Amino acid sequence: MDTTESGTAPPTLGVGMVGYAFMGAAHSQGWRTAGRAFDLPLRPVLAAVAGRDPDAVRAAARRHGWAAAETDWRALITRDDVQLVDVCTPGDSHAEIAVAALEAGKHVLCEKPLANSVAEAEAMASAAEAAAAHGQIAMVGFNYRRVPALSYARQLVADGRLGELRHIRVTYLQDWLVDRAFPLSWRLEREHAGSGALGDLGAHAVDLAQYLAGEPLVGVSALTETFVRKRPLLAGATAGGLAGGAGSETYGQVTVDDAALFTGRLASGALASFEATRMAAGRKNALRLELNGENGSLAFDLERLNELSFHDHTEPAVTAGFRRILVTEPDHPYLEGWWPPGHALGYEHTFAHQARDLVLGIASGTAPAPSFADGLQVQRVLAAVEDSARNNAVYTPVPTPPPTPAPS
Amino acid sequence: MDTTESGTAPPTLGVGMVGYAFMGAAHSQGWRTAGRAFDLPLRPVLAAVAGRDPDAVRAAARRHGWAAAETDWRALITRDDVQLVDVCTPGDSHAEIAVAALEAGKHVLCEKPLANSVAEAEAMASAAEAAAAHGQIAMVGFNYRRVPALSYARQLVADGRLGELRHIRVTYLQDWLVDRAFPLSWRLEREHAGSGALGDLGAHAVDLAQYLAGEPLVGVSALTETFVRKRPLLAGATAGGLAGGAGSETYGQVTVDDAALFTGRLASGALASFEATRMAAGRKNALRLELNGENGSLAFDLERLNELSFHDHTEPAVTAGFRRILVTEPDHPYLEGWWPPGHALGYEHTFAHQARDLVLGIASGTAPAPSFADGLQVQRVLAAVEDSARNNAVYTPVPTPPPTPAPS
Amino acid sequence: MDTTESGTAPPTLGVGMVGYAFMGAAHSQGWRTAGRAFDLPLRPVLAAVAGRDPDAVRAAARRHGWAAAETDWRALITRDDVQLVDVCTPGDSHAEIAVAALEAGKHVLCEKPLANSVAEAEAMASAAEAAAAHGQIAMVGFNYRRVPALSYARQLVADGRLGELRHIRVTYLQDWLVDRAFPLSWRLEREHAGSGALGDLGAHAVDLAQYLAGEPLVGVSALTETFVRKRPLLAGATAGGLAGGAGSETYGQVTVDDAALFTGRLASGALASFEATRMAAGRKNALRLELNGENGSLAFDLERLNELSFHDHTEPAVTAGFRRILVTEPDHPYLEGWWPPGHALGYEHTFAHQARDLVLGIASGTAPAPSFADGLQVQRVLAAVEDSARNNAVYTPVPTPPPTPAPS
Amino acid sequence: MDTTESGTAPPTLGVGMVGYAFMGAAHSQGWRTAGRAFDLPLRPVLAAVAGRDPDAVRAAARRHGWAAAETDWRALITRDDVQLVDVCTPGDSHAEIAVAALEAGKHVLCEKPLANSVAEAEAMASAAEAAAAHGQIAMVGFNYRRVPALSYARQLVADGRLGELRHIRVTYLQDWLVDRAFPLSWRLEREHAGSGALGDLGAHAVDLAQYLAGEPLVGVSALTETFVRKRPLLAGATAGGLAGGAGSETYGQVTVDDAALFTGRLASGALASFEATRMAAGRKNALRLELNGENGSLAFDLERLNELSFHDHTEPAVTAGFRRILVTEPDHPYLEGWWPPGHALGYEHTFAHQARDLVLGIASGTAPAPSFADGLQVQRVLAAVEDSARNNAVYTPVPTPPPTPAPS
Repeated sequence: MDTTESGTAPPTLGVGMVGYAFMGAAHSQGWRTAGRAFDLPLRPVLAAVAGRDPDAVRAAARRHGWAAAETDWRALITRDDVQLVDVCTPGDSHAEIAVAALEAGKHVLCEKPLANSVAEAEAMASAAEAAAAHGQIAMVGFNYRRVPALSYARQLVADGRLGELRHIRVTYLQDWLVDRAFPLSWRLEREHAGSGALGDLGAHAVDLAQYLAGEPLVGVSALTETFVRKRPLLAGATAGGLAGGAGSETYGQVTVDDAALFTGRLASGALASFEATRMAAGRKNALRLELNGENGSLAFDLERLNELSFHDHTEPAVTAGFRRILVTEPDHPYLEGWWPPGHALGYEHTFAHQARDLVLGIASGTAPAPSFADGLQVQRVLAAVEDSARNNAVYTPVPTPPPTPAPS
Repeated sequence: MDTTESGTAPPTLGVGMVGYAFMGAAHSQGWRTAGRAFDLPLRPVLAAVAGRDPDAVRAAARRHGWAAAETDWRALITRDDVQLVDVCTPGDSHAEIAVAALEAGKHVLCEKPLANSVAEAEAMASAAEAAAAHGQIAMVGFNYRRVPALSYARQLVADGRLGELRHIRVTYLQDWLVDRAFPLSWRLEREHAGSGALGDLGAHAVDLAQYLAGEPLVGVSALTETFVRKRPLLAGATAGGLAGGAGSETYGQVTVDDAALFTGRLASGALASFEATRMAAGRKNALRLELNGENGSLAFDLERLNELSFHDHTEPAVTAGFRRILVTEPDHPYLEGWWPPGHALGYEHTFAHQARDLVLGIASGTAPAPSFADGLQVQRVLAAVEDSARNNAVYTPVPTPPPTPAPS
Repeated sequence: MDTTESGTAPPTLGVGMVGYAFMGAAHSQGWRTAGRAFDLPLRPVLAAVAGRDPDAVRAAARRHGWAAAETDWRALITRDDVQLVDVCTPGDSHAEIAVAALEAGKHVLCEKPLANSVAEAEAMASAAEAAAAHGQIAMVGFNYRRVPALSYARQLVADGRLGELRHIRVTYLQDWLVDRAFPLSWRLEREHAGSGALGDLGAHAVDLAQYLAGEPLVGVSALTETFVRKRPLLAGATAGGLAGGAGSETYGQVTVDDAALFTGRLASGALASFEATRMAAGRKNALRLELNGENGSLAFDLERLNELSFHDHTEPAVTAGFRRILVTEPDHPYLEGWWPPGHALGYEHTFAHQARDLVLGIASGTAPAPSFADGLQVQRVLAAVEDSARNNAVYTPVPTPPPTPAPS
Repeated sequence: MDTTESGTAPPTLGVGMVGYAFMGAAHSQGWRTAGRAFDLPLRPVLAAVAGRDPDAVRAAARRHGWAAAETDWRALITRDDVQLVDVCTPGDSHAEIAVAALEAGKHVLCEKPLANSVAEAEAMASAAEAAAAHGQIAMVGFNYRRVPALSYARQLVADGRLGELRHIRVTYLQDWLVDRAFPLSWRLEREHAGSGALGDLGAHAVDLAQYLAGEPLVGVSALTETFVRKRPLLAGATAGGLAGGAGSETYGQVTVDDAALFTGRLASGALASFEATRMAAGRKNALRLELNGENGSLAFDLERLNELSFHDHTEPAVTAGFRRILVTEPDHPYLEGWWPPGHALGYEHTFAHQARDLVLGIASGTAPAPSFADGLQVQRVLAAVEDSARNNAVYTPVPTPPPTPAPS
């Protein structure tokens, strides 16, 4: 029995991916896996991947299972076998690629942060809104919303298990810049990355805070710092403008923040606290958050991503306490596709979940969150953080987005 | 650029899998992923899957990405496009399928426990030894050896970081049988499963203990118990013999252990303690182990599988303590294929690692552990446990295997 | 206002303590503190302490606040200002002192294990029973019952929160004998200590298991080991018989176990597992236990003694999980005497709680558990463990005590 | 042998305590215990306690072991048998009592925060400086510096184990105000308490940050909030001014903060983050802190106060990780007075350690930290926090104290 050609197989969704580094590898695993783990109405097909270096992109395509390779993303977004464009490039090219892909009639998934500036993000959100009228879907890749423990945390908050919110605190700690000898890369250059720990880690922190709380940040006060301002250049590794005119330069300037601290208020009046840093020795990927409400609290640590800590404050104090929920039960979000209770999921599963929800959204014509408008809102917060940091930490309101039009 | 036909693509290794339930799904994910995460000299191809029910096996093939489906495993093991047979059936058919596959000239991967009896396991180990002369490789699927934290634990032990071993304790706790209403299934019938918690969980515990310690158990003393002796029959779900002639039976007999406790001694004189149970409310997949040696200790919990706890007893006492190593560094075993530090792996990654090592072994002609002889040794321990349990817990020696011939 | 002489002060209870080493210091702190933390009907007075060395006992008295010192325990137990004798000597003198004190009409608190042999323990239990007829109270110092988290655990079990018990496992791990150079002491000599890790640590483990489960162990199977059989003699430090006739001996024989593993069954049929060792590198005082029942589970670690872990299995699986109860709420056992929630208690508080309960018992004429009969039952279990270890681990029944007569 | 009158007993130090509520009980236990646990050159004597209510103070004296009671603190501070005055009253009376006691020639221990305003704290620091010239010692009761884990943390920082500091974050979370029905008390009235979570919890956080880092905060940016602005009045319980003229008032105004968030910079440029709240459901006494430096990191949680988490970043990454040091080894600070390794200490031990260090300081004529000048510096930080909170979170410098004169 051959099983590859079958009348009952679902129709396909051709995916074209731009970029193939860390995020590209993770997204590839998501696209390869989503249709295996979940019953999907459309079968994702890894149609083509684009990258500038012909040999490298071909090798990446072979490695990750993409049927074709392109050296020009403009060629990729117009391929007939591509219905969805997945943008995995550095932030400085997000706006151009995503807007072009939407204009080419494709659905778009764009890595976070949505863009390097509010202006770009606004353009993208507008393009997404226009494309939505044609049934196109645009989504931003805040994949941590799809860690089952965090999806479930959102459910508990939405169900009122925390009651009125008092506090949210999110720290996202990494340590790969602790070593002064760590070389310069595009992630440390403002022109490519937009910002440093703020845009890379802080963007996740802000998105999660707003997602979990179910309400926006309305103002922030911030301090940022670049502890190590010069870093060695890798021979030929990094890019334009760094080396100036001199050929003998071996150090380049770090032009983004190493760390950002900010506090703020949510619309409801709850207090929020954030820290994003790449300078916390021993913390590898410590996205830790806690919410405290009148009726309960939640805590989470990405380094233990299968666990959610929940305190039910309505219980008698003698038996109350933070319970460690292993978020691997069949009724937990996304777990229907996976293993029996107690069998851990990992980081990359979030990309399969993201792919699943995007496929379901495309099939049903319902855009899954987070939308480009959500990504823009995060961008506005990050901009307010940078404004505050430049202005002596003064409390800086986040511009209120116009009300979202109701879905027609 | 099409990338699927390329002169530089590695040769393929056709895999044929028998069985497609929980283990089949996990192995499929392993075979699909291994060549994407790791540079492999052979590219695994999911050639065919076998199962008795034509519709079900076809659906499974489509779901998990197998190119063909067979309803007779004998047909599968003789397919030309299959070079390796992956046995994912219940234990009572392992011996027959694995021996036949070896005799058909195929490499074999067999799920654990190797068999339901020492006699079967001996036949399998003999067949594997005979096949080895023809360059065939046989491996038993104790996948937890390939949790990076446990592979690394083995390295630390082998490097002498623990010194002379004093203690090893392994508990493997689950809770899916706590509910008396949980129905009977093949896993609760001796004729299919061989034993209960002992063979399912205890087999992992014993294999890991011997793997990590680097030495065999030489004797055991055991208690076993079946707390709930009758369980509801699912309509049509379970199988042969249970319902007898009467049509009205709604309960069937549990004929395996719910829990097994055993103590023992390793060849070096270290003391060992084991517990396997499906009756530990709240413990989902709690394979916890600890080793104590003269120079240090190690601890691990499968519910937090990215972490290894290590105490270095040679340090000054004021700064000594169990450290939580996040086993996600590039230099940790298998991590070269995955994500940056702190980005968690999950349960299913063990199957990709198993596939990787098997492929490397086949390509290089070097059999990776655990061999069928290793699986037989575990079987001997389990048999000694059952003997001891039947004999008032008296200390029961594990028969010593003949010395392994040195690799030529 | 002078406050020391007041008509409203409660009557006093004169305490006389025999022994003043580690346990003596801990008991002293308990006696000094109980009346400060709790409202007691009798005020404990540290009347006198006894020890053989005049200078040392005088220094100890001054250090720990005892009003008088005696060099002969026989003098102490007949003092008029002593109503309660607290026996803190090594196990080989417990029986003689405790029985004499009871015969002298005193209440008695005796450190655990109750004795070094079942015969001694039987004599003590008989003496206690006889003395009870005269209103005297005898209690054995299993102080860990009075860790608030464990007292509360017992309440939860007694309230049926675990349902039918399936498993109890207790490990008590220390590491002070890992170093081969650690010298011989009375704790390593059978004639003084009775046994090694078994009597010292295992006795606590067995008492707690029976206390928490609310039922006795009915049989055991055991392995014991002495890993390091010779240890250096401290010049003049240890005692009788060790050095034989030869003056040049520098090593002495360890005549007790370093470690004991045992499994067993409780009266209800639940399975029990124990490990006591002084050879677990990095574990300082790791008395860890877990109970699994049909409706829930409990877990505890003495190294985090303010915490109790409770899993309620009657909750929906999606929100269920082990919760960490900080046992510092006003309604938790003994907490009425201490600090606001979250303010940790320590090891020594158990001695204040023990003193409190003993004072309350004496004032009300109701003997608090654990009685000498309870201590005897533990001794019977330890003897069965040693029998089993000598007999190839064969399952060895624990003699059933005659039914306790109902209190008149 | 009577031991109470002995030629070898050390001279005494008469202590007089003002206030006898929570802090009074804790200090009493410290004074009673310090000389029992530690070898001290002076024996603390609980000479007299002062309080306004004659019956209550007499009962407190009896309960806690004070020889005499006074209803006027002015009488207490002039008693001949009092050499040290221990101020345990609410913050609004600290300055008056402490300055008077210093002027009366007594040593002074004053509870934290030092005062309710910078002006008061300055007066106290001046008085302390003047008294120092006469050999008097003044100390402020930031008792958490004397949690052994934190004392040891300071040692590790001072030894350079963290290298150049990048981050310090301190959160102090409690939950006793989550319930809106919790009544008003002096701690919620600005005139008595000075501030709310800020002065009560934030003061500890700031002191510890500066103590551990070994450097002052130079500026802060802050948000504060009072979530519940009216609370029920306990009949007769709270005090002046609240009820105004009307007899029928049942609610009173909360005039202090429920929560305070602030960020800041240390003198070295390290970033600091703080949160103090009484609104974090499920957090009972969660003073958590972490320091990240170039060579390592430290983490601590007061709810597990016997543990210090240390990451040594100079180790190879494969074996590096946060290690849990059980700070109960004989070589750890203060442990010489206590129990064997692994035997936990509790909250109140910090008061015994504080008493010990103060006695040692008085005996040797060397003032132990934290001095009143240290307390003043904390007060300046708290004032800057309140200024910033009033001024839209703008970064607010902490006034630099004049250089401390070198000890003569």
